Order: sequence, then C-alpha cells, then structure tokens
Amino acid sequence: MLRKRSGGEQMRTATDLDCVFKPRSVAVVGASNSVLKWGYIILANIIAGGYDGRLYPVNPKGGSIQGLKAYPDVMDVPDEIDLAIVITPARTTPAVLKRLIQKGVKAAVVVPGGFSEEGAAGAALEEEIAKIARDGELRLVGPNTMGVFGGGRHLTALMPPVAPDPGVISFVSQSGNLGTQLLGMAQSLETGISKFVSSGNEGVLFTEDYIEYFGNDPETKVILAYIEGLDHGRKFLEVAKRVTRKKPLIVFKGGRTRAGSRAASSHTGALAGSSAVYDAAFRQAGAIIASAPDEMFRLARAFASLPLPKGNRVGIITWGGGWGVVTADCCERAGLDVVDLPEDALREIDAIMPPYWSRGNPIDLVAELNREVHRKCFDILAACDNVDAVIVLGIVSTSTIFNLNRRMDAKTREQIELFKGEAEKMDIQFEKHINATAAKYGKPILGATMQRGRQSENLAERSVIYTSPHRAVNVLAGMCEYRRYLDSLEEE
Amino acid sequence: MLRKRSGGEQMRTATDLDCVFKPRSVAVVGASNSVLKWGYIILANIIAGGYDGRLYPVNPKGGSIQGLKAYPDVMDVPDEIDLAIVITPARTTPAVLKRLIQKGVKAAVVVPGGFSEEGAAGAALEEEIAKIARDGELRLVGPNTMGVFGGGRHLTALMPPVAPDPGVISFVSQSGNLGTQLLGMAQSLETGISKFVSSGNEGVLFTEDYIEYFGNDPETKVILAYIEGLDHGRKFLEVAKRVTRKKPLIVFKGGRTRAGSRAASSHTGALAGSSAVYDAAFRQAGAIIASAPDEMFRLARAFASLPLPKGNRVGIITWGGGWGVVTADCCERAGLDVVDLPEDALREIDAIMPPYWSRGNPIDLVAELNREVHRKCFDILAACDNVDAVIVLGIVSTSTIFNLNRRMDAKTREQIELFKGEAEKMDIQFEKHINATAAKYGKPILGATMQRGRQSENLAERSVIYTSPHRAVNVLAGMCEYRRYLDSLEEE
Repeated sequence: MLRKRSGGEQMRTATDLDCVFKPRSVAVVGASNSVLKWGYIILANIIAGGYDGRLYPVNPKGGSIQGLKAYPDVMDVPDEIDLAIVITPARTTPAVLKRLIQKGVKAAVVVPGGFSEEGAAGAALEEEIAKIARDGELRLVGPNTMGVFGGGRHLTALMPPVAPDPGVISFVSQSGNLGTQLLGMAQSLETGISKFVSSGNEGVLFTEDYIEYFGNDPETKVILAYIEGLDHGRKFLEVAKRVTRKKPLIVFKGGRTRAGSRAASSHTGALAGSSAVYDAAFRQAGAIIASAPDEMFRLARAFASLPLPKGNRVGIITWGGGWGVVTADCCERAGLDVVDLPEDALREIDAIMPPYWSRGNPIDLVAELNREVHRKCFDILAACDNVDAVIVLGIVSTSTIFNLNRRMDAKTREQIELFKGEAEKMDIQFEKHINATAAKYGKPILGATMQRGRQSENLAERSVIYTSPHRAVNVLAGMCEYRRYLDSLEEE
Repeated sequence: MLRKRSGGEQMRTATDLDCVFKPRSVAVVGASNSVLKWGYIILANIIAGGYDGRLYPVNPKGGSIQGLKAYPDVMDVPDEIDLAIVITPARTTPAVLKRLIQKGVKAAVVVPGGFSEEGAAGAALEEEIAKIARDGELRLVGPNTMGVFGGGRHLTALMPPVAPDPGVISFVSQSGNLGTQLLGMAQSLETGISKFVSSGNEGVLFTEDYIEYFGNDPETKVILAYIEGLDHGRKFLEVAKRVTRKKPLIVFKGGRTRAGSRAASSHTGALAGSSAVYDAAFRQAGAIIASAPDEMFRLARAFASLPLPKGNRVGIITWGGGWGVVTADCCERAGLDVVDLPEDALREIDAIMPPYWSRGNPIDLVAELNREVHRKCFDILAACDNVDAVIVLGIVSTSTIFNLNRRMDAKTREQIELFKGEAEKMDIQFEKHINATAAKYGKPILGATMQRGRQSENLAERSVIYTSPHRAVNVLAGMCEYRRYLDSLEEE
C-alpha cells in the first residue's frame, strides 16, 4: 500500500486507543453489496472474523447489506459508535468525518488512498481531514491504510481476509501489504495477535503513538513495528525508551540500502537514507532489530512465552551430530557461548549413555530411541549452573519414525499403530516437560525440528519450536540482547 | 548420526554407482519382525516407499518377514543381487560382507555404528571391512550411515520414513540426521530428489566419489553436498571443477566456527578448522556456498527449473510498497542491481496504471485487483533489455482475498464462490504465464508470497515461488554467482 506522510502535528490525547482496538460498536461507512468493492470485502471480513460487538453498515441507499440492516447516514444509527471504518472515496472524507464528529464517534479508520501519496492536491486534502479530526478529537487511523485488528473483540477490519487468533503480541506497520501478509503468517503459525494497525499515511496518529499505547496496554506483552521512516525521531526515541523498560519492542526497518530507500522514498518521502543512524537509535532505545520481517514474529513468540536468559551461555542437545555442528556454528556467529559442561554433569551422562558418546556440548544422543534417555540428558543439561539457555534439536518428534504401510499385514499395522500412538503421547509429554523445565529453572528452552507435519499441533507446547536451528539461535540471540539492555539500565 | 573417517584409500572403480541408487534387486540382511529394531524399520520403509525392484529379507530364522519370504542366508536367494542393506551388528559385518562378495553382490550399505567413531578397536574393524570391500570390488556405503534413496526405482532404504518424490536433485550428506531431515523437508515442499546418500564414516566411498557419479549421471541436474570435512581435498577439488562445468554443485559446510568445528571434530576427527580455506576452495571449484542447510534446496529448485540469468540486473514487481522496499534492500545487499527502467517501458506502464504510480523499479501495483493490469506490467518488465531477472511479489495469489463466510446468505456465498473460483483459475494462469515468460525470454523469474495455504498446490508452476522475498533474492544471487563462474571459464 502506498503511503506518504503529511507534515501534521501530533495529536495531544493520542494514547488512549481502546476505541480503535476494542470498540464496543463499529460503523462501516461505505459498506457495499458489490462483491468486488473494498466496502464489501472489509465488511465481509469483519463479519467472518466474528466481531464481538455491534456492527452498523452505512450506505446512502439503506436497505440490507450482507444480511445486516444498513443506515443511510451515520446519524441514523440508534446507538453510540466507538469506531467508524470509512471506505468512501477520498474527496468525500471531509464531510464524512464531520458527520462522525457530530455523531460523537470516537475514532475513525480512513481506508482509501488519494491523499498525500498522490501529490499536492492529495496532501492538502490530508491536511484538511487531519485538522478536522484533531479539532473534533476524533482519533484518526490512516488515511490510506489496510485497516486494524483487535484480538480481544475479534475485530478484523482489514482488506485481506486474515484473522489470527487473539494473543499478546501487538504490531504497528508502515506498510499495510507487508503487515497483513505477516498477520497471515501469524495465523498459519497459530501465533496469537493482540492488536494490529496499518498506520497508513499517518495523518494524525503516528507509529510512536501506537507504540506508546501498546506500552501501556496490559494485554500486550510484546510490541512489533515495521518502520520505513520516522517524522518525529526524538519523540519516537523517548517513547521507545519508556516502553522497552517494561516490555520488548522488536523493529524491522525497510529502506536500508540505496535501492531500498529509493523505493521507500518514492512513496513515503521519508528520509530513509541513513540506516546506521536508525540502528544506533533503535539500539540506544533498547529495541531489538530483526534481520527479516518474519523474524519479528519468531522473536515475539519467544518473548511472549519464555523467561529471559540470564546470560549468553548455551547448552545444546541433539538427536544427531550434524544439526549439533550447524547449531554450534550459528551460536558462535551470533555471539552465544557454547560452554564446556561441568565435569559432574558429564559423569551423570556417562552413566546413561553408551561409552562412545561425545562427552561435550552439544550433547549428541546418537539416534537413541529411548525417550527416557532423552529426558534424563535434557534434565542434566538444563540443570547445569553455567548454562543460561538450552536448544533442543530433533528429539521433539520421534513418533514420526514409525510409519504405517499399506502393504503391512493386519497384525503388524496394529502393532505400529500402538507404538505410534505411544510415541506421540511421549512426544507431547516431552514438549510439556520442556515447558515445565523452562519454568522450573527460569531458563529459556528453544526447540528446532524440520518435521513440518506436526508444526501446528500441540500449539501451546510448541510455541517456541522453530523449523531450523538458525532460527532458534537468532531468536535466542535477540533475547540475550534484550537481557543485556535491561541489565545495563540497572547498572545506571 | 556419528561418523568418523577412516584413513582408507579410495576405491578405483567408484564412479559407477547405479547398483547403489538404481538396484534391480535388494537384499536386507538383518531384516526383522520386531517393530522397534532398525532391521524392521528400514525394511518397512523400503516396502512403504514402493520399491520398484525385487526385495529379499535375509534372517537366519527364515520364515516370513513383513509378509515377504525371508532367506536364512544371502546365498539362498535364488536371484542376482545388486545391493545389500546390512543391518546386523558391527562385529558380524566382516563375515556378512564376505558372503555378499561370494554371492556376487555389487554394492552394500552398512548401516550400523560401532566402527571408527568408537575408538581404536572400531577403527580396526572399519579398516578390515574396507579392505574386504575393496578386494572384493564391493561398492561400500558407510559404515555408520542412515541409508540411501533412489528416486528412479522408489528405493527408500533409510532409517526415517521420508520418501520424497523422484526428481533431478541429487544429494550427498556427511550427516545422516541432517540429510534425512532435509529430505523430509523436500518431501513436504514436494521438491523431487533423484538420489540421496548418507555417506557415514566413508570407509570406502567418499563424498567426492558420489559427486563424481552424480556429475556423470544424466538423471541429475543439480548436486547438493553437506560437508563437515574432506580427507582428500585435492581429489575433491579436481572432481568439483569437472562437475561444475556441467551442472551446479551447491555445498553447505558444517563446522565453520570454533564451537562448530569442535562439535564436528568430536565425532569426525576432521580438520574442520579453517572455513576460509574451504570457502576459497569451494569458490575456486565453482561450487555455490549455501548460507543455511535448507537454502541448499531453495537454490536447487531454481537451478533445476529456471534459465540462468545473463547478469545481475533485477526488475521487481510488487502488489504493495512494503515488500518492494524490503526486496530492494535484499537485492542491493546481495550484490544485485535494481536497475532504472528504460523510459519507453515507463511510458507503456503509464498507459495502464493510475497517474500516481511510482514510475520506477520496483513497480508497485498499488493493490490493483485487475489481473490484466498485473499481467501487462509484468510483461513490460520482463521484456526490458536491461533486466536479467524478475522478482514477482504477492500477486501470484489474489484468490485468497475472497473468503467464504459462514454468516453470509446463500446468494452471496454463491457469488463469492464464483469469484473465488475465477480468481483461482486466474492465479494458476498467471503462474503458467510466469513460467512461459521465463522460457520466452530465457530469464529466470522468481516469486515470493507469504500465503502458505497454497504452497503445495499447482506444484510444477510454483516450483520457484518462495515464502519470503529474502529467500527469492538469495536464490537469485546464487544463480548470478554460478553464471559469473561459467562466464569466467569461457574467458580463459
């Protein structure tokens, strides 16, 4: 989605945005029965998402829209309205917003483009609606936005039909396209989202306003931000510094190279040039910089459910040598310390592993099939005083080594089914054990397995199991970075 | 899987390994009816994989194993045997191999551990079986291996139940665990595999022997290798140089850091220390170095189905601004040139896009819903003389913006179903159009979409569509690197 920032001032009373993300009632202005119009699609998405509030389509024709009574004018709605989704053409929006303010509507999401991203006339129009909103104390999202998501009330006022589960991660994105694609990814990974906003042209409400609100929001545990440019760098820094004392803020910056910033400036006009300056500012504010857009979610899943490591010393346990090697490589490159294990831990493992085990970190389980050996070795590793975090490779899903076979006789099939069922139960028990151990020692424990089949099963337990060792290591490195930042604050 | 290299000499006549990967008949020595034994699991996997050849379980007890007639001794099998899978304990293998040679068996996969990875006695045993194999001209895979896969005959003689489709990618792995996990990933991504071998301790056959065979194999178009250490560096280089003139060789090296090489040397004894030396050698030989194990497959999918780019100039077309920015960033960092488009191409696009379009590269389609506009802009971009490769973002799956909704009335549902069906057809047409255009101009065209739902549909068409822009860009950079290597050979 195109966006271009207006030079507008910031709204004074911006920080209470419950009316945007948890509205008790929503009016859809420009609702439509024509399937190929956004006024149809967004209303359909709100209905499909199961919005838990009162919903009022508004269209001059009145009648019935998608099975709901439609009102010719917002003033006709016989109810208070917290949030209006405005999908009428840009030129109509000044009049629409004035009617909303007259009605006492608290917030509006102005979806259409045709504002500052389209040159001088559009910029003037954006100035006009921004002034109307500020004067009328209407909290305005956009214009030129792909919409908002509020998990608590199952509000999916979005252009694409993405509808993640409610969760504790909140996300502001300066690209609607990128933001909603990531929401779709969160949905398919069953990663819960508390709140999302495509901030659009940021005519009134800015990235830092949403971050401040998320910082104060008790339902939000982790904040994500996709940023192309910041108009109020100092304000952003102040807000970020306050927020990162309380909860992690994960950022990804687009427009980091000449080619990327040229692409960004062609539609945002933002001074995206100096990514080194941005990075330094982000770090100074305690934000964690993701290396890819989807890495924001991987980091968020870990921050949402795991204790922070006390330091950067890692223990690795693996079902096979190769992944151990690759993971140790990743750790060292990410600044994590693959520590030597204490001699007494080695001796404990000597007692349960074959004599030729590797006697070191990573602990290689040499394709051992006995889950009890896995569990004991894992426990010994997690208990080590000099281990701050544990990475578990492969052993989270041994049930997949048993496969049914159409050519098997009935008795063998029965046997396999029995074993497979038992193995699956043990897999789930092992996952639960991982979580319990993380809680017991207050240490983060991250898993990696490439067996995608089981990815979305046993959700809660698997929330910190990634599809490659690289990903698990990068996430842990981000957690260590945040821990160091918090420690540095205490030392001040 | 543990592995430790013996110091054995290389086999003279190693290069014809059809008997390993395309055997007409297979004996499983140590086949079992006990579900928890590898002698059971591997035989079950071979049967489940639908091996297209004659299969003979061998077990001293005879009788019936998994519904097949079992023979007490390999000499009893009333047939010629191309390949024996040996799953009996290490100490029994010298006698077993002698029997195989006596029978005239051409090749053997020695699965069990208990050889050089277990100290001096094991190393002596490995020397003994290596000598037996060399003297008897028995091609020996392993010992201490997770097995082999041959797509042509659907041979899945592997410890885990992975069974990818047959294809044109062949893969040698010095880690059975990592290798078979990647095979599982290939299977779930429906990426076809021609041949795979877990090379184990490499007592007789070495990584370079398999690469040489794959190089001469007309069924193999792309070769992958996971390497922890090489005993015969010079031989490897010679082989790799010969092979990379004919087809791409993609390598990933484990043990690149102190921590990683310590982990590697604890079981391979390989001198994994100097990754800079390895990298220089790989590059000199024209091999492409993957940045992660799973990246090997992403690279392979592109090399298997796309023309090589003539240079590093990239055109990007995107359904939304954000992904365009991120992709341009990735391109520049990967050394790809996001070129300015020729003025006549810009003017052609002016005629079909709204006046406020970005007029540059990336081409931002501003959430346009009309597929005809997508197709025309894409065609104009692909035809540009100064564009060597095209990256297509997001627009490969617009059908997903229409979602059915349980609360809709019947008429609306019907309408949506109609639109969704049409959109899906257009998506598939667009994918076919991408492939046809790639062929027409001889330029590689790579897609990226985060919509995972459609990932495994329309397989052939989607073989070069990745789940993130980063991945598409890294793959394209690898292709450019190989092109530069081939060009440098011509200049010699």
